[in-house]
Amino acid sequence: MDSRSIRLAVVPGDGIGPEVVAEGLKVLDALGLKIEQTAYDLGATRWHKTGETLPDSVLEEIRGHDAILLGAVGDPTVPSGVLERGLLLRLRFELDHFVNLRPVRLYPGVTTALADTRPEDIDMLVVREGTEGLYAGAGGVLRKGTPYEVATQESLNTAFGVERVVRYAFEQAARRPRKKLTLVHKNNVLVYAGDLWSRTVDAVAKEYPDIEVDYSHVDAATMFFVTQPERYDVIVTDNLFGDIITDLGAAVAGGIGLAASGNINPTGAAPSMFEPVHGSAPDIAGQGKADPTATILSVALLLDHLGLTAEARKVEQAVADDLIERQGAWAARSTREAGDDIAERVSG
Amino acid sequence: MDSRSIRLAVVPGDGIGPEVVAEGLKVLDALGLKIEQTAYDLGATRWHKTGETLPDSVLEEIRGHDAILLGAVGDPTVPSGVLERGLLLRLRFELDHFVNLRPVRLYPGVTTALADTRPEDIDMLVVREGTEGLYAGAGGVLRKGTPYEVATQESLNTAFGVERVVRYAFEQAARRPRKKLTLVHKNNVLVYAGDLWSRTVDAVAKEYPDIEVDYSHVDAATMFFVTQPERYDVIVTDNLFGDIITDLGAAVAGGIGLAASGNINPTGAAPSMFEPVHGSAPDIAGQGKADPTATILSVALLLDHLGLTAEARKVEQAVADDLIERQGAWAARSTREAGDDIAERVSG
Ligand SMILES: CC(C)[C@H](C(=O)O)[C@@H](O)C(=O)O
Ligand SMILES: CC(C)[C@H](C(=O)O)[C@@H](O)C(=O)O
Repeated sequence: MDSRSIRLAVVPGDGIGPEVVAEGLKVLDALGLKIEQTAYDLGATRWHKTGETLPDSVLEEIRGHDAILLGAVGDPTVPSGVLERGLLLRLRFELDHFVNLRPVRLYPGVTTALADTRPEDIDMLVVREGTEGLYAGAGGVLRKGTPYEVATQESLNTAFGVERVVRYAFEQAARRPRKKLTLVHKNNVLVYAGDLWSRTVDAVAKEYPDIEVDYSHVDAATMFFVTQPERYDVIVTDNLFGDIITDLGAAVAGGIGLAASGNINPTGAAPSMFEPVHGSAPDIAGQGKADPTATILSVALLLDHLGLTAEARKVEQAVADDLIERQGAWAARSTREAGDDIAERVSG
Repeated sequence: MDSRSIRLAVVPGDGIGPEVVAEGLKVLDALGLKIEQTAYDLGATRWHKTGETLPDSVLEEIRGHDAILLGAVGDPTVPSGVLERGLLLRLRFELDHFVNLRPVRLYPGVTTALADTRPEDIDMLVVREGTEGLYAGAGGVLRKGTPYEVATQESLNTAFGVERVVRYAFEQAARRPRKKLTLVHKNNVLVYAGDLWSRTVDAVAKEYPDIEVDYSHVDAATMFFVTQPERYDVIVTDNLFGDIITDLGAAVAGGIGLAASGNINPTGAAPSMFEPVHGSAPDIAGQGKADPTATILSVALLLDHLGLTAEARKVEQAVADDLIERQGAWAARSTREAGDDIAERVSG
């Protein structure tokens, strides 16, 4: 990767997506790496114009890249689910992003909504499964609009799908100082899926004797995120539970403006995709109010994924320094100014 | 109800269940009501002895009561799910407790995990559906234990089931000063069920023109519980999302030791069941350390349900006064002393 350039597919998307992505790219540029960018105008505008969410030809083009940087997807003018499923989830599923990696970390200098919580209390890595569960799209509706309507959603879980993400999570836990892995599920109610997840964790755990293994029901986990976040190191969980607890994680770790994520295909058979956890926030779009930090931290995950570890640490350090300096006083800077400040630290 | 006595089925259950139930009954006694109690020894001990969770004959006996007071169910010596599904969920389903009512309220004097949050910021009523969704038990497993295993869980949602709980939630919202109802779901991913829930809320809303209707995705809701809990008044949601957000709600409103719930069959065709949201907490069982407040507040919900409104308010007021007096200094009292203190306020 060092000598040749990074082929990067960029999907700015909707709302604040383009604004935050611009700052992510600015920081990437500041590292002095060779980057070949291709921008894809996917999102609400294209859907309104052409009815397309993700044409097959575009998907094939995107496949030819080393990584994808995505801003945000979704707009109130588009029916709920159309862009989310047709674009974002389609990318995750087609490119087999079976690991959705979401660090939950409270940086020094950041104000958290929790009283009496210190940065050392919140340092988790959530490994969310990305290609199965209730996100598979299975389900249907019978007698729609009548008093006898039945609507179903099915959670599909396979040994193949669960084992590969559980293995990835153990690998991550093995590399971290605490070496603890917690399965989050609801195995007392979702007995079939919960049993598969629990058995898989138990089986893989035998290969990692020095990793402490724990379990939380998802309902209890949301409580512990607030009252005892220090309980968790690496968490592995299914697609829906991961969706829920990582938004909560973002909230307790200083807000959604700081939460990064990677949709990762660890096999390398398809490009992985990096995106902030926040959505398109149409209410503040175009006003230079969005915090680009989550996107910039997602760029750090991207660099890590491409093996550019030193560059990844540099970006993370720049963000960490910036967060200490601003001390929670976000409102004072525009999106662009924040990007400038962090880019300057990176190149300086 | 005034002249004849209340026929109360009591299920103390496992762990701290018996301890907290004893204090709930103490407070009920202090009101001077005529009560005929029948205790049922359901739970881990009975399962170990006989393999029974809830025999049909016991279920039929329980049906003959005006209400049920339940402590907690579940024990580490019993495989996960056996008691939860065979006893607790079976009672909810057989007695058609389609409303799971869970107030989330920060009482003055209570320490919350959230910084800068005042009692007036947290005053919600979560109306959780209790008889459908992923709790229906639908699903299965194929090729168990092989690399080709598939495990499914199905969320079943019916127009009948959704409409009745949505109507109940609108009724509750109409009686509260803010008159706001928020649907919590994930309708951009769970499109079939989400669409049924959204359409039902929209349809019933037409009959309640003075109620403000809002929507939150469940992931965003967990964030708002922490950062902007004042956003919510009445929430209506499905069985699983309700499970998750009410544990989180308990955490932000001073802890699980204060969270009450009612499993309600509003038709009166079967007895409703009242229980603290917390579990059996085997780690502190038998030590007099459990906080009985959640059970006592559940008794207030029970009284409300039976139309004993004045008595319900009296119990709530006694708890509120007790919470102000103790000012978060829970640890100083035993379970029994706490019950004594509150009972004394009720009778005084
Ligand atoms: C937009 C939505 C489909 C998505 C999800 O549910 O995965 C988002 O909430 C996320 O967490 O990335
Ligand atoms: C014990 C468990 C089955 C139960 C549930 O999931 O409903 C509990 O968490 C609750 O919220 O009452």
